[in-house]
Amino acid sequence: MKITKLTLVGAGPGDEELITLKGVRALQSADVVLYDALANKSLLDFVPEGVPCLFVGKRSGEHSMKQEEINELIVSSAFTYGHVVRLKGGDPVVFGRAFEEMEYAEAFGIACELVPGVSSCIAVPSSIGIPVTRRGISDSFWVITGHTQSGGVPADIYLAAQSSATVVVLMGLARLKEIAEVFAGAGKAELPVAVIQNGTKEDARFVVGQVKDIAEKAGEVQIKRPSVIVFGEVVGIHPEYIALYSEKLLNEEILV
Amino acid sequence: MKITKLTLVGAGPGDEELITLKGVRALQSADVVLYDALANKSLLDFVPEGVPCLFVGKRSGEHSMKQEEINELIVSSAFTYGHVVRLKGGDPVVFGRAFEEMEYAEAFGIACELVPGVSSCIAVPSSIGIPVTRRGISDSFWVITGHTQSGGVPADIYLAAQSSATVVVLMGLARLKEIAEVFAGAGKAELPVAVIQNGTKEDARFVVGQVKDIAEKAGEVQIKRPSVIVFGEVVGIHPEYIALYSEKLLNEEILV
Repeated sequence: MKITKLTLVGAGPGDEELITLKGVRALQSADVVLYDALANKSLLDFVPEGVPCLFVGKRSGEHSMKQEEINELIVSSAFTYGHVVRLKGGDPVVFGRAFEEMEYAEAFGIACELVPGVSSCIAVPSSIGIPVTRRGISDSFWVITGHTQSGGVPADIYLAAQSSATVVVLMGLARLKEIAEVFAGAGKAELPVAVIQNGTKEDARFVVGQVKDIAEKAGEVQIKRPSVIVFGEVVGIHPEYIALYSEKLLNEEILV
Repeated sequence: MKITKLTLVGAGPGDEELITLKGVRALQSADVVLYDALANKSLLDFVPEGVPCLFVGKRSGEHSMKQEEINELIVSSAFTYGHVVRLKGGDPVVFGRAFEEMEYAEAFGIACELVPGVSSCIAVPSSIGIPVTRRGISDSFWVITGHTQSGGVPADIYLAAQSSATVVVLMGLARLKEIAEVFAGAGKAELPVAVIQNGTKEDARFVVGQVKDIAEKAGEVQIKRPSVIVFGEVVGIHPEYIALYSEKLLNEEILV
């Protein structure tokens, strides 16, 4: 009988060199790999030849597997092949439903291991020069999903807009306008904001702005998913932000 | 003339296999390494023979280098050796002063690169079975440093205690009692809490409790630094927590 095992591996934020050694070793010992849309596909090069690699990702607008189907595929794959490596973008526990998959597998007697990854919530902002924490500017950061089951603005955003934390929103691009309105309603219309697409990858793009104009700016340059949104004074030290808004400030002063 | 360069590398949360491939490659191409107390020392095995590795960490109770001294050592090392690798625990931007070091070096014309790491704020809780986010329980997490320049409880803790976010406190063990009192003051005396020492390493230890008893419990088992503290309902699904508090609940019900 095969030894069944499930290893959840964080693929990191995009750059394929940002996977961990432990993640590489898991891929090298896989009997089958189930990978998400957010995982960098070139990581599959670590998988031994002949080992099946199945795409189980969710992409908006395409047919996608339901979580229940993924859970069942994990279990059936373990009994068919042995060691299942489940490759997920970023870190598997950050909105990744890692523990749901592990609990389902464990109920079938499958041993589970979790290999954390570099999370995009920290690494994507820092890759364009924005640290989520910075002494004297921000002593904390709050990571929130923009994707809610109800479809509205996440409840945590209302309190986050009042805090002095750097607020990082994942999967929030579709709701950027509404989320920015919550910050504006909290008196933060001029708080710096950045939206970063494909962070840490070669085709990374970003736009900086303020709460009051970020949705329009992101629309103008057609920023797309996957993206990371950062609200906070730490964005204000980015050279592009400084160039843009110090000039604006100067012009406004001249007009007065 | 030597090519001067500074690469800041996140060493990950403790387990030496949780460094990234990019981090390993940086260590392999180092001409000198400056490492922190929180970085796993066995990672220095990746450094080529003969390359000096200097400890510049800060440990409480010991003589430690001031940040200004570290900045100057980075610059002088770059001009003496060439490629400086600055190895920091976890991810360099999470309370790691990475950007301060890079800006100082850049002012001397030294090229800088940042290699993110697996942050202990996410990986340490998940290593003992606590996900920072979990569908239906917590849609966000808030990471706060317990170490403030003023020495008091961080201001963000007061708002965090009112939120439904998972609250992760780094460097907060010395202030655990006061921080727990803030949560109790917000009506959360029975909120589940975990304190984890040396997370992801072989000598990892942890204790689970509630806001009202966690400081005493952590004291009893003598949890020490470095540690990660997690406040939130996600701790409540840990088997040890369930075993402890469902029994207690049962006993209390019998007494009633």
